[in-house]
Formats: sequence, C-alpha cells, structure tokens
Amino acid sequence: MLLEKINDLSDLRKLSVEDCILLADEIRDLIINKLSQCGGHLGSNLGIVEMTIAIHYVFESPEDKIVFDVSHQSATHKILTGRKEAFINPQKYREVSGYMNSDESEHDLFKIGHTSTSLSLACGIAKARDLRGSKENVIAVIGDGALSGGEALEGLDYGGTDIEGNLIIIVNDNQMSIAENHGGIYKNLKELRDTKGEARNNIFKALGYDYYYVAEGNNVKKMIEALQKVKDIDHPIVIHVCTKKGKGYPYAEEHQEITHYIHPFYIETGLEKKTFSGERYDYILKNFLIEKMKKDSQVAMLVAATPVMLSFSEKDRKALGARFIDVGIAEEHAVAMAAGMARNGGKPVFATKSSFFQRTYDQVSQELCINKLPVTLIVINASVYATTDATHIGIFDISMLSNIPNLVYLAPTNKQEYLAMVEWSIDQDKYPVAIRAPRNGVFNAQGEVEQDYSELNRYLIVQSGEQIAIIALGDFYQIGEELVKKIDRKFGWKPTLINPRYITGIDEKVLHSLLQKHRLVITMEDGILEGGFGEKIARFYSMTDIYVKNYGLKKEFLDRYDVQEVMKKNHLEPDIIIEDIVEMGLF
Amino acid sequence: MLLEKINDLSDLRKLSVEDCILLADEIRDLIINKLSQCGGHLGSNLGIVEMTIAIHYVFESPEDKIVFDVSHQSATHKILTGRKEAFINPQKYREVSGYMNSDESEHDLFKIGHTSTSLSLACGIAKARDLRGSKENVIAVIGDGALSGGEALEGLDYGGTDIEGNLIIIVNDNQMSIAENHGGIYKNLKELRDTKGEARNNIFKALGYDYYYVAEGNNVKKMIEALQKVKDIDHPIVIHVCTKKGKGYPYAEEHQEITHYIHPFYIETGLEKKTFSGERYDYILKNFLIEKMKKDSQVAMLVAATPVMLSFSEKDRKALGARFIDVGIAEEHAVAMAAGMARNGGKPVFATKSSFFQRTYDQVSQELCINKLPVTLIVINASVYATTDATHIGIFDISMLSNIPNLVYLAPTNKQEYLAMVEWSIDQDKYPVAIRAPRNGVFNAQGEVEQDYSELNRYLIVQSGEQIAIIALGDFYQIGEELVKKIDRKFGWKPTLINPRYITGIDEKVLHSLLQKHRLVITMEDGILEGGFGEKIARFYSMTDIYVKNYGLKKEFLDRYDVQEVMKKNHLEPDIIIEDIVEMGLF
Repeated sequence: MLLEKINDLSDLRKLSVEDCILLADEIRDLIINKLSQCGGHLGSNLGIVEMTIAIHYVFESPEDKIVFDVSHQSATHKILTGRKEAFINPQKYREVSGYMNSDESEHDLFKIGHTSTSLSLACGIAKARDLRGSKENVIAVIGDGALSGGEALEGLDYGGTDIEGNLIIIVNDNQMSIAENHGGIYKNLKELRDTKGEARNNIFKALGYDYYYVAEGNNVKKMIEALQKVKDIDHPIVIHVCTKKGKGYPYAEEHQEITHYIHPFYIETGLEKKTFSGERYDYILKNFLIEKMKKDSQVAMLVAATPVMLSFSEKDRKALGARFIDVGIAEEHAVAMAAGMARNGGKPVFATKSSFFQRTYDQVSQELCINKLPVTLIVINASVYATTDATHIGIFDISMLSNIPNLVYLAPTNKQEYLAMVEWSIDQDKYPVAIRAPRNGVFNAQGEVEQDYSELNRYLIVQSGEQIAIIALGDFYQIGEELVKKIDRKFGWKPTLINPRYITGIDEKVLHSLLQKHRLVITMEDGILEGGFGEKIARFYSMTDIYVKNYGLKKEFLDRYDVQEVMKKNHLEPDIIIEDIVEMGLF
Repeated sequence: MLLEKINDLSDLRKLSVEDCILLADEIRDLIINKLSQCGGHLGSNLGIVEMTIAIHYVFESPEDKIVFDVSHQSATHKILTGRKEAFINPQKYREVSGYMNSDESEHDLFKIGHTSTSLSLACGIAKARDLRGSKENVIAVIGDGALSGGEALEGLDYGGTDIEGNLIIIVNDNQMSIAENHGGIYKNLKELRDTKGEARNNIFKALGYDYYYVAEGNNVKKMIEALQKVKDIDHPIVIHVCTKKGKGYPYAEEHQEITHYIHPFYIETGLEKKTFSGERYDYILKNFLIEKMKKDSQVAMLVAATPVMLSFSEKDRKALGARFIDVGIAEEHAVAMAAGMARNGGKPVFATKSSFFQRTYDQVSQELCINKLPVTLIVINASVYATTDATHIGIFDISMLSNIPNLVYLAPTNKQEYLAMVEWSIDQDKYPVAIRAPRNGVFNAQGEVEQDYSELNRYLIVQSGEQIAIIALGDFYQIGEELVKKIDRKFGWKPTLINPRYITGIDEKVLHSLLQKHRLVITMEDGILEGGFGEKIARFYSMTDIYVKNYGLKKEFLDRYDVQEVMKKNHLEPDIIIEDIVEMGLF
C-alpha cells in the first residue's frame, strides 16, 4: 500500500508519477468502500481522484490556495491532507464531513456546500494576494454543472479581466450536472471537446481567459504535465479538463445520475442496501403532479438540477416532455422564469431545497411577490428532520420567506392537506404561494381537509379546550397532538389545539377568541424562533395578560447533528414541555 | 407636433419612417424637460428613444411581449403607450412611475426595478407560449451593464439552447454600466463592436444564439430595418445594438455617470438645481474610509456598480487605485469575493442598498456567516426615509439579515457611533458584521461613544427611568428621544431610554433589569415589524407581566409613498404614541 507512506503532502510529492497512478487506484478503492457503507457523493468523488492527486503533486497547499466548488468531490483531497484514517477506519468514518471544512484542516479554506461559489472565492483570495503583493497560486476547481449558477457566472465574468495576476480555474467537465446539463454553456463545452479545444467560439477566451484543454483528466501523468505548465502563471487561465463521473466503478459510470449521491450500497451490484418501502412525500408529490398535469395543460414542473431529489426519474421526465423543465443549477432563473410563465398564462410549480431557496430571495420578493404572480413554490427539506450539514439545513426558510409581503406560505400537517394546498395553489391566480413540504413522516388526515385556502390566514381549531392553547405549525403539529394528550392526562382538562396552516399571517379572530378561556398560548415551529412564526404570536399578545411560550429551534448553524439531541436541547419533546408548564406554576 | 397625433401604438404605426425620426426628437425634448423638473434616470432614457420607437413600430404589443430590463429606460415606451400626458403636463408628472408598472398599462408586463431580470422573465413568457402553442414575439431589452448580473447570465445561458421558439434579446450596448463596466463580457462586447460583430469569439454565439449586429442604434431607420428582419424569427437571437447613453443632450453625453440618475437640473447647463450643503452620510463614510485606507493597507472598498451612490467620484476611485474595487452589477460575486479576501488577510468593506442585499442572502449566509469571516457590510438606504419605489424600499433588511446566525448587525444612532462601528468592524477578525447606515439626517453624539463592540449584544441605557422603557433602534432613536421628553411632560416621571445598538441579539441582562421598575416596554424600528427586532423583545417578555408594544412598519410593498403619511399610519410619531399610551390605561 502506497497510502501507508502518505501522511501529508510532502510524502505525496516524493512519489514517482508512476506511483501516483497506483495511488489513484488505492484511493478509489477507499472511496468506494467507505461510501458503500456511509453513502455520499460517489460519482463526483470518483471522477476527480487523478486530478486531485495531480493538483497536490504540483501545487503547494496551504501556501497555494485551492478551492473546490461545492466540495462534494473533496474525498481525495482529504485523504491526501492528513485525513486518510477517516476513509480507512470505520470507527473514524464520521470524523470528517462530506464537504470541505476549515475546522478539519488548514488545507480546507472554507466550509462549503452550496454550488457555484468557488470562482468568486478564488477571485477574492487572488485579489487579497495582489493587494498584499505575494505570489501564491490560486486554484479553483469547478464542475461543468456548477458553471450555470449565477454566482459562478458572475465570478467567471469578473476573473477573466479584473484579476491581473495568477488565477487557475480548472473546469472539471464530466458532461453532467446532477442530472443532464442545461444551457448554452454546455453546447460550447461540447464544441470544445469535439474540437479538442479548438472551436471557433470559446466562452472562456471570450471572457478574457487564457485557455488550455486536457482531454484525459483521469490520466494522472497528463494532469501533472498540464498543471506543471500553468503553475505560477501570471494571468487568469481556464484549464478545461475532461473526466468521467463515477470513473473506475462500472455501476457508477453507467448510472451517473442516481450515483451522484447514493445511500449505502452493495459494492458488487451498486444497488442500495436499504430499499425504501412505504410512503414518501417526494413520490406522493410527484404522482400528484403527474396526474394534475394530465388534467391541466398549463401546469409545468420546474426544477433546478435536482430532478431525482424530487423523485422525477429519467422515465418520468421523458413522459412529461416539455412540461418538465430542468433549468440546471440556476435557481434565480428558475424563479424568475416561473414568474414569466405565470404572466403568460402558465401554472408553474418550482421545487427545491429550503437552503437553495436562499439563492432566490430577491426573485421571490421582486419578480413574484411585488407582481403577485401565481407561482407555486414547494420548499422541501425544510425541517430539523432533513439534511443535517450546516450548509444544507432547512430551518431558516420561515424567517427568510414568511416576512416577504404578498407571499402566502403554507404549512401542511398531513398528506391530504399537503396535496389540497398544492392543488389550490396551482388552480388559483391571485397569490404567489410557497408550501413547506412535511418531513416528519407521512401522516393521514383524520377527516376531510380544507380544499380552498383563498381566504387567507384562517387557523383551524382542531380541538376547543381551556387554559392552554397549542398552536402547532406544520411538521410539529404531531408533537402538538401528543402534548394535548399529555396535558389532559397530567392536569385533567383539555387544552385547545390549533393547526395554523398559514405561516405568513395572523388569524386575529381566532387569537382574540383564545383570550377568553386561556392563560397560556404555546407555539411550535420546525425552524428557528428568530424572525419566525411564534414571535408574531408573542407580539400579538404582548399587550394582553395571556402568556406566550414559543418553541422552536435556536438560531445557529447546526452541523451534522443528532436530531434527538437537538430536539431535546430545544425542549421540543412533549414530556419536557410538560415539565416546563409545571415549572411555570400557572396551573 | 407629431406627438399630438399619437395616442396609442396604432397611431405610431401609421407614421412614415421619416416621421419616426422627427418623433424621436420630440420625445427626447419631453424627457429632458420632465426630468429637468422631476429628476430621474436621464442617460438610459435618452439613449434608447430611437430603439423604443422602432420596437413599437415593428412589434405589436401587447400581443408581442416586451420586457425592459430594470425598466429605468421606459419613458419612451410609456409615452408611446398611452401615457404621454405624464410627460407633457406637469400636473400629471407623478402619475407614472420611473419604471415599468403593470398597474399603469397592459403594455407593462411587470413591475420591475431591479436589474438583470429581463432574460429570465422573457424565457418564462416564451416557455409558456410554446407550451400553449401560440406564436407571439418575445423581446427582452437589456443594457450591457445588466449583463454581468448572475440572474441575467443564468437567463442568457438558458435561453440560447432551452428556448426552442422565438426569443429576441436586444442588447443595448452603450458601453456603460452605472459607472464603467467590469468583467470579461465587456471585453468581448468591445471586440464585437471593433469588428462590427465579426470577432472570432462571440459569447452569444458560444451560448447558442443567432447574432445580429447593429452599429447605429440611435438611427430609427436602421433599427426598424433590423427589427423587421428578426420579427417572427423561429429561434433565439441576440441583436447587439450600439447606442449612446445620454444621446442628444450634450451634458449627459459628456457626463454619463453622474447623469445616469439626476436630480432636477437646469437644462442650459445640466447642473443640478439644488446643490447640497451640510453633512451627508455617504460623504462622511467615504472620507472616513479613505483615511482608514491610508492607515491600513489591507482595507479595500468594494461596490457593485454604484460608486457614485456611495459618493466615490471618478477622482476618488483613481486615487484609491486597486483598493477601490467595482465588480459591476454582481452583488453575489461581491459578497463571495469579500469572503475570499477576508480568508486571505484582506479587510473588505462592501456597501450597497438594502434592497440589493436581497440578491446576496445566500452568500451572506453561506460564504460569510457559516465561515465567520470578518467582512464589513454597509447597508445603505435601509430606511423608510430612503427610496420610496416598491422595488427599492429599504424596510425589509432587518428581517432578512438579522435572523442569519453568526452575523452581527449593528444599528448606529449618530455619526460618531456609525464611524466607531465601522472602524471596529474593519479592525476585528471574529465576525461578519453588517452596519445599517443612518438615513434620518446627521446627528452628533452627545458624549463619548463606545469604540469596542466585541462583547456582543450589550444595549446602552441612555437614561434610567421608571414605568416605561423605550428601546429605540438605529434611525428611530431620535423619535425615542422625543418620546421620552413628551412622556416626562405628560406623566411627570422619567421613562427609561435605551439604544440597543445590536439588531442581532438580545441583552438579557438589561431586559431582565427592566422587570423591576417598568410596566411597559416600547420598541421602535425603522423596518417592518414582521420578523424584526421588536418581536424578539416581545418574545423575551412573553412569559412575564410586563407589556410590550412594538412600533415599526407594516409588512407591505409601499410604493412612491409619502413618508409623513406612512409614519402617521404606523403610529411612528411621539404624539400618536402618547395617545396610544393614554389609551392603554396603564398609567
């Protein structure tokens, strides 16, 4: 094992180029083995093993600065920079994150998880270097898929002319985004590949870059040679490198989309170990939308590079034809384009992760909400129960979206309510609507659910009681239900239970009515308390004698957290809330 | 006067091409005359008179769909589409806005004011058309300056390949952003101009567009001929048109940057009628930063295309050299690049308008705050006293920014405090800091101000009193001061006055201490109440017997409002608050 000898980058640089080729095989095996047990970004990590070895062979991190875009391809980088044990020893698997993480190593310059950020970050590093007058190399490694993101395009545009010194942008062209690519830039990349970099039009040259084409990006030797040529270059250059996503693992090479991110799998077959049975909200929504599209020819589904995350398989997409629109990594464009479609009679539905909606704040505010255009936004992974990486957690969208005027933000509490809200939103033409897809397991409604949400901000009193009113929003409604039972058992009387449904407004009538028989109002929300739903209730009652206790999450960037622990810490368990109530001494 | 005969677009189309040339002169005079009295976007409107006439001569709005980017150049469009009176009759000047406004006319498809949105909106209109199978032309008119924005680049990338039918993008190339352009795309535009569209590299062709070059965009005849050629085209095309910003008004042609937006001016000289005397916060900040940069070579100033808005003149910029960084219209890039600079030892300061920070939510959250990088953000025009157009109002940033973890958002109440906060932020290396520049006039501190804000969330008790505590944030601090005096006069006792300084956190110690001698806490903030500062105070006290009354603005898109009226409506006047207090019956 060559890897046994590699403890830091100086060991790597002692190897011969031939040994580097062997090392690539060892690293690839480690990655496949670990990810088969832990899951993770398989394709991107396998495709870039050779390139990463070459980068660290040629450049001298941490003096030279390397930024990996998204950084879901940084496994080899981590193995080479002192963290190989986290890929060898199963006990240590969880010690490193799936992304670059500046807490782990001086070779990781940032905590990164969102796409398309590397070019601007690298421009900043280069700019500070030039102002200081030092001479380090600055290298950004960006996948072709990430290039369509507005932030990357802004950075690409800027770097070609406004960085005067060294800036080395490696475009890792594996001809794939998460799914297939969309956009004109990919047409140009293809022309460049087809002509070995000689095409008449070259977007990188057009933007002011020097340009160098490397056909065999999975060839360590050629990569080393290429990088040696550009090391210490005194101007911005794009190295356009062709690699294969999933390289070296046949199943991943053949199934690039579904192995982009994969759950634990059998190495022999590539198949995931745990096949999901039972209902899942992504499938529920997909099936509903496919039926809806059959009935209404104006409905169209938009995604930004993540069709599979929403369970739209290649087959589904083909069946839907032009009405399934993947814009690639371009969330700003997706929301603005949806606004344009709505203005011309279309009924667009755009879905993405809570944390990716952060890229579209301005489009939601300006294009959608100022114009009151009837677009349906589905906010997925908006929950403490969803992704636990700091860069992808979904607990900030309530404070971000719900304070934008004119937006109707709805929080369904079960399957039937969810679909009724989606259908209402698609059919109406008055409001921009966002719907917070549930994430706490699939629950069924206990009776008929409301079909018409046109009259805004009407809370649903599920149970009329006394003393305590529990207003339990969306995903945390089921905790509210449990709490009701426990209060009954503990105190001998029934509290009131409310499903508020609307995140974006107050039902003054219902809230006023609570003043009669209640001393305490409890709110529960699956998001941070700061700027959230509960604070609006606290404000409403702030000049009355009723007490208000808000339950939700603390404003912080949790990272790879244990859900149970976080729930406990934030008192989001019925038993702990009962203790809190007892402590209040009100009853 | 030809204009007398033009009441709608059908009248325009009856004119001969020669008459259209005369019409352009009449329209240009109207624009100069109105703007000399009202102020507005002079250069962009003058540059596009001929193009707009040609567009409406050739295409058939509203069947054909026309989207003007930013739409600060839509005066001619408004004059031709039934709104000429608002340019002729001084009594009617204010009846139309300076932007496209769908409330005014069916020819205005959207309310637009932010830049770089037209391509995505046009793609959406075209997409809905294609799904429906209709055949209208879709035209987007975008300035060269707007092209560097991420949203525009996403839209440009998408449209070239993923819109299959008609899409006509008119690039209005006047060789200027608000100030000079920055970025590689402008290098390519220059090559294209220099070669009359024949340059080897053509970014539009690279992205999949057909391409047509028009050298004389201020020539009505040539513009009409060009547009007639592309009308009903069956695929996406870019018409690259050269125009002159400020065309036809010598002062504006010569002073393109300062006449981009101009206050009322003398037509004879171009000089503004009201020259400002006294102190202004933009100059105060600029002068401070220039001095700071002299003392500390790591400090750099970043702007996104709006140097003059921050009072950095061409002369100032030249003097600062490489340390004054204008990234062009590219706010996402600006914030991410600042993060990169901070990571490499730089001390970047980035300033822009409150409503433009909406474009950088994700970069502030991910690149800055997750990474805790010491970048200074100056949020200007963040006030009810600032811009009153719906698209540019600055009352949403508190709920947007202050709920992002790790950010320290500060609200100074006077000049000395403002500069002390800016200096502290630049000098420290622990936190991403945003500072809300005051907008309610320049006030001086009454004593020494705090220099060190490192210990977070310490509110300043300016006056210790009883019964009522007034927590008056930032711009509304002076209202709090007045209120204190009026309460004293009315009730005969002194209330407590607090300058909280920190928007992003609660001073639990101070708030606890108020429980002793107070029955009511009043909060005041220059922003919407929803998700804002006051609600956090309401939550803090929600389990106590103290009453809390939050004063601030309602969550709504105000548009071209009267400040006094809005303040009154929201009870933001000391006398009205006194009435409210009396009505409470607490004292």
